[in-house]
Amino acid sequence: MAGRERRLMTDTVALIGLGTIGEGWGLAFASAGHPLRLHDADTTRAMQAAERIGREVAGARVEVRADLAEAVAGVAHVQESIAETIDAKTALFAELGRLAPPSAVLASSSSALLPSAIFAGLDGAERALVAHPFNPPHVMRAVEIVPSPRTSEATIARAADLLSGIGQVPLVVRKEVPGYVMNRLQAAVVGEAMHLVAEGVVSPEELDRAFPAALGWRWGVMGPFETMDLNAEQGFEAYVDRFGASYQQLTRTLCVDAPWTPEAVAAVAEARRRAVPRAALQERRRWRDRMVRAVAALTAGRGARG
Amino acid sequence: MAGRERRLMTDTVALIGLGTIGEGWGLAFASAGHPLRLHDADTTRAMQAAERIGREVAGARVEVRADLAEAVAGVAHVQESIAETIDAKTALFAELGRLAPPSAVLASSSSALLPSAIFAGLDGAERALVAHPFNPPHVMRAVEIVPSPRTSEATIARAADLLSGIGQVPLVVRKEVPGYVMNRLQAAVVGEAMHLVAEGVVSPEELDRAFPAALGWRWGVMGPFETMDLNAEQGFEAYVDRFGASYQQLTRTLCVDAPWTPEAVAAVAEARRRAVPRAALQERRRWRDRMVRAVAALTAGRGARG
Repeated sequence: MAGRERRLMTDTVALIGLGTIGEGWGLAFASAGHPLRLHDADTTRAMQAAERIGREVAGARVEVRADLAEAVAGVAHVQESIAETIDAKTALFAELGRLAPPSAVLASSSSALLPSAIFAGLDGAERALVAHPFNPPHVMRAVEIVPSPRTSEATIARAADLLSGIGQVPLVVRKEVPGYVMNRLQAAVVGEAMHLVAEGVVSPEELDRAFPAALGWRWGVMGPFETMDLNAEQGFEAYVDRFGASYQQLTRTLCVDAPWTPEAVAAVAEARRRAVPRAALQERRRWRDRMVRAVAALTAGRGARG
Repeated sequence: MAGRERRLMTDTVALIGLGTIGEGWGLAFASAGHPLRLHDADTTRAMQAAERIGREVAGARVEVRADLAEAVAGVAHVQESIAETIDAKTALFAELGRLAPPSAVLASSSSALLPSAIFAGLDGAERALVAHPFNPPHVMRAVEIVPSPRTSEATIARAADLLSGIGQVPLVVRKEVPGYVMNRLQAAVVGEAMHLVAEGVVSPEELDRAFPAALGWRWGVMGPFETMDLNAEQGFEAYVDRFGASYQQLTRTLCVDAPWTPEAVAAVAEARRRAVPRAALQERRRWRDRMVRAVAALTAGRGARG
């Protein structure tokens, strides 16, 4: 029994907030064998998530707890995925600070709030951090670990270990910046793409259609630095020697922060609805998830290198 | 014989300049069955390219011509891939304007020069445009078609047809802007990534390692607009209603045009050499090409939709 107790102490994960993100986390943790405790202010939602996880993951161990204290008792990791408002998060983490075992890592799925704000009023902030997944979390397998200035290195290491253990690729964000790392890179692409559509440089259909074959196929298997490294015979430094000045000149002409004009938004929306009617979006998401899993499988065990 | 003459008139492609890009074009055109004429100021280089194309593409029809007039006589399409300097290109295109059949499309592989500059002195500029491939052209299958203000719509359509016919995904760039479309999107990512490394927000290793799982797997199968479309239950417009304001606020914090510090360049170069020693770069490129082809194959016939 002591052994079992210890196992539960280190393994059980509490998921607080069972919207799309929380449910995705549930699938990811359950697939790796973690026992789960689910809690949502709306208990029906937690029940529905438990049902889906039980249906999709053979052998999943999932319990729903309407009482927050019971949900977090004895767990090793708490993953919060409630609404993205600072007041709701600070209030919840103040409670979690009191109710969760002192040894538990307290993680927020926030995609935009800064950890120093989320954990401002928290006693024991050394064990709290943001663990930001991508959408959907059980398919896109990166997670940004964003400590606040008060988070301990031990907490960062424990969160990275736990998340690596369920097959996620952790990225530690060493300084708090808006959007962390990956959403900044994505926003750079989206901002410039919206600008080019607004200026009539390219149609949204053609931009989206050519994007994978121009950039996305490579980025499906390697990051932007390795891409440059392989594009010069002698590697990255040779690339910078040869193209660095003109590349930086080009970056000064970008307009990633141009306002999204109503006309550009409408043009993209119309292009999207021509491509996939609204009623077919859910089916297209399932197609995306199948395709993304297939891309991921191609590089499993190798893509992580380099 | 008249039939054969007509076929050669419409099908034969002249490749001028046989560096990496010209050779990649050769593999792409030959794989689709086009007869080729190769010309390079250095005839030995043209011979080596012809040899590689013959070795890698069964049934390739490749001729080398030391004389430019002979290289372009009777061809349907001329693809120029010489050094990326405006003087060399304008001089060559002035010659091509005199020597190539009036019916031939004259295309430059330039990745950075503006078509109005390249074709400034060209008689018959209505039949000239930039057709910019990605690297390597026979693996990454997008091509940016960039007309100058003098290029005819018929020429744009013929180039798009020919290139679609060899399996490329054409993207028409409707206004001349530095970097065209895709290199602007790539530069936005690279610029912000260099900035985040320079600021100590993230290590180059972790950024590259997490990039595919965070963003690249999705972008391997769809563009940035479809990605947003599928990330809101009701599609793109709902996404913009909900996240547009905060997204645009985030874009105003980006630093895509920050100077690349020597320290950041060195940090990336060192990370790359730890991952793949210089002597192993060529093998890693072959791995990249295999992986990219596998990603492309996943969505063949479907990824072009949406």
